[in-house]
Amino acid sequence: MTNDKILLAHGAGGKLSAELIQKIFLPVFDNEILNGLEDSAVFECESGKLDFTTDSFVVKPLFFPGGDIGRLSICGTVNDLSVMGATPLYLSVSFIIEEGFSLNDLEKIAHSMKTTAKEAGISIVAGDTKVVERGAADNLYVTTAGVGKIADGINLSCSNAAPGQVVIINGYIGDHEMAVLLARGEFSLHSEIKSDCAPLNGLVEAILKTSGKVSCMRDPTRGGLATVLNEVAEASGVGIIVDEDLIPVRQEVKSICDLLGFDPLYLANEGKIVVFADENDADIIISAMKKHPLGKNTAIIGRVVEEPKCKVLLETRIKGHRVLGLLSGEQFPRIC
Amino acid sequence: MTNDKILLAHGAGGKLSAELIQKIFLPVFDNEILNGLEDSAVFECESGKLDFTTDSFVVKPLFFPGGDIGRLSICGTVNDLSVMGATPLYLSVSFIIEEGFSLNDLEKIAHSMKTTAKEAGISIVAGDTKVVERGAADNLYVTTAGVGKIADGINLSCSNAAPGQVVIINGYIGDHEMAVLLARGEFSLHSEIKSDCAPLNGLVEAILKTSGKVSCMRDPTRGGLATVLNEVAEASGVGIIVDEDLIPVRQEVKSICDLLGFDPLYLANEGKIVVFADENDADIIISAMKKHPLGKNTAIIGRVVEEPKCKVLLETRIKGHRVLGLLSGEQFPRIC
Repeated sequence: MTNDKILLAHGAGGKLSAELIQKIFLPVFDNEILNGLEDSAVFECESGKLDFTTDSFVVKPLFFPGGDIGRLSICGTVNDLSVMGATPLYLSVSFIIEEGFSLNDLEKIAHSMKTTAKEAGISIVAGDTKVVERGAADNLYVTTAGVGKIADGINLSCSNAAPGQVVIINGYIGDHEMAVLLARGEFSLHSEIKSDCAPLNGLVEAILKTSGKVSCMRDPTRGGLATVLNEVAEASGVGIIVDEDLIPVRQEVKSICDLLGFDPLYLANEGKIVVFADENDADIIISAMKKHPLGKNTAIIGRVVEEPKCKVLLETRIKGHRVLGLLSGEQFPRIC
Repeated sequence: MTNDKILLAHGAGGKLSAELIQKIFLPVFDNEILNGLEDSAVFECESGKLDFTTDSFVVKPLFFPGGDIGRLSICGTVNDLSVMGATPLYLSVSFIIEEGFSLNDLEKIAHSMKTTAKEAGISIVAGDTKVVERGAADNLYVTTAGVGKIADGINLSCSNAAPGQVVIINGYIGDHEMAVLLARGEFSLHSEIKSDCAPLNGLVEAILKTSGKVSCMRDPTRGGLATVLNEVAEASGVGIIVDEDLIPVRQEVKSICDLLGFDPLYLANEGKIVVFADENDADIIISAMKKHPLGKNTAIIGRVVEEPKCKVLLETRIKGHRVLGLLSGEQFPRIC
């Protein structure tokens, strides 16, 4: 590149924009559909149900243990498609970059996107770049959108939870948000915690291949496990009881939460999936999940009940119950 | 709402996020597919070619004569789909909002999106909202992505331009960027110029309904008409000659350009389309375009030639030629 910093001209649609596309984005994201000539991507599609979603990513810092904004922005959209039972196919990527941002870091982020997209088996087929003046953004924001295909017969919805179903999760909660918060250095704590940021479509595929009846899947990102459980309880008009002792939380995350006064149930995850499944099918589903690299620590954490409707109860160690509400403050901004 | 300003908690995935969705976005964007429960949108699709695109919008100011960031963000994506000959079907919308932004303005912008989406006949089916702390963004940025359907037999590409084709545009250039620049108040000039911001899918439909052979369409946004012509010349390996006298520029835009030293050929448009069509079919295409409200000032502005390959020449008033290159600096940031 002609310069090691992003200039306003990189976003102006002229020579430097073309150079950015030709020298960084096209070679990195390289695939048959992405051609750099048109402003959009054309692909063939079979008839049936499609899934479409978008998310913006404003995580701070851009690089954190276990991931970066590039990996996160691919996983976030892949996972939103996956929890609907869709096979993620195509992604678009749009950057809003602050003038002066390091071209080297942009390239690193693009490479991380490429690697993650490959891991998830999807193609980045369309994109856009805007550059804003110094002070009008904090380094870099990314928005991805994704299209996936839902196979016939799959009909997952967070309004499908019903009594007789159990709640399953594929492992430890809270790692992502904790890793990001500690990476900011605000708490002067050292830890080995890494973000769990990962594309979940492979794990979802393994679940849907079993004969087990799954009614609903969700990824507990912003607002954490407690928020997702509340959304499902509300949408399905059911109660959900989860057992504190069964929810996988790393000792290190627990200790830091205790120290700082956080609740791991509200911490964001980026590689976790909550599965609602018929109690009788739990064994085959869990067995399939445990065989997948992202499901080794899979556990049943609770069950769906008739009452209290639209509420989530936490069964505590002393066998009392407390209501788990929606996150009511902001906890922390920019964790995804 | 509980407060007239956006708080960090509006982006945290908890109670205030839910309130924002339930009280503003769902009622405004209301449609069958958007349900506010799932993180993505599911829709049925027939087999065939789909078009997929994304753009981020960082325009400053957010409200300008002739439009606002809401209208712009819908038109931008609708138009990127339209120029590929796609019928725009579904849009996603993702907001990055600065803490402290006016909820009232957010509602105005959402309403403007709704109105524009209705005008274009498309549905907003998925979305996301992130809030960043004060100073980490400039009010509000919007990213839209869109999916459209390309009918059988349509095969437009900017590599399809060939000698024997003419270049048609649907009216005055430069209005959008000029309106935005003047709205910033930087030049202390008063004018009646309004952005041309409009969804072009209706006009494109009218063009494709004729029997005229169209090879390529492009919307001259960032970088303006000169940039789009260069991209087509380069992609098709042809020369393009445009006649200065034939290119529609309002007298007012011309005068301000002269005064400030801008070239209208490089100013961004948001409701213009450049059509490459067989010379013999120009009449029927132009006649169809002129019947459409967005095509009243349609004109042939040039022709495709063998040589000089990959270059755009401007035939000037004194019948000389000068090469129109790619925009080489930034002209102005944040005009879309």
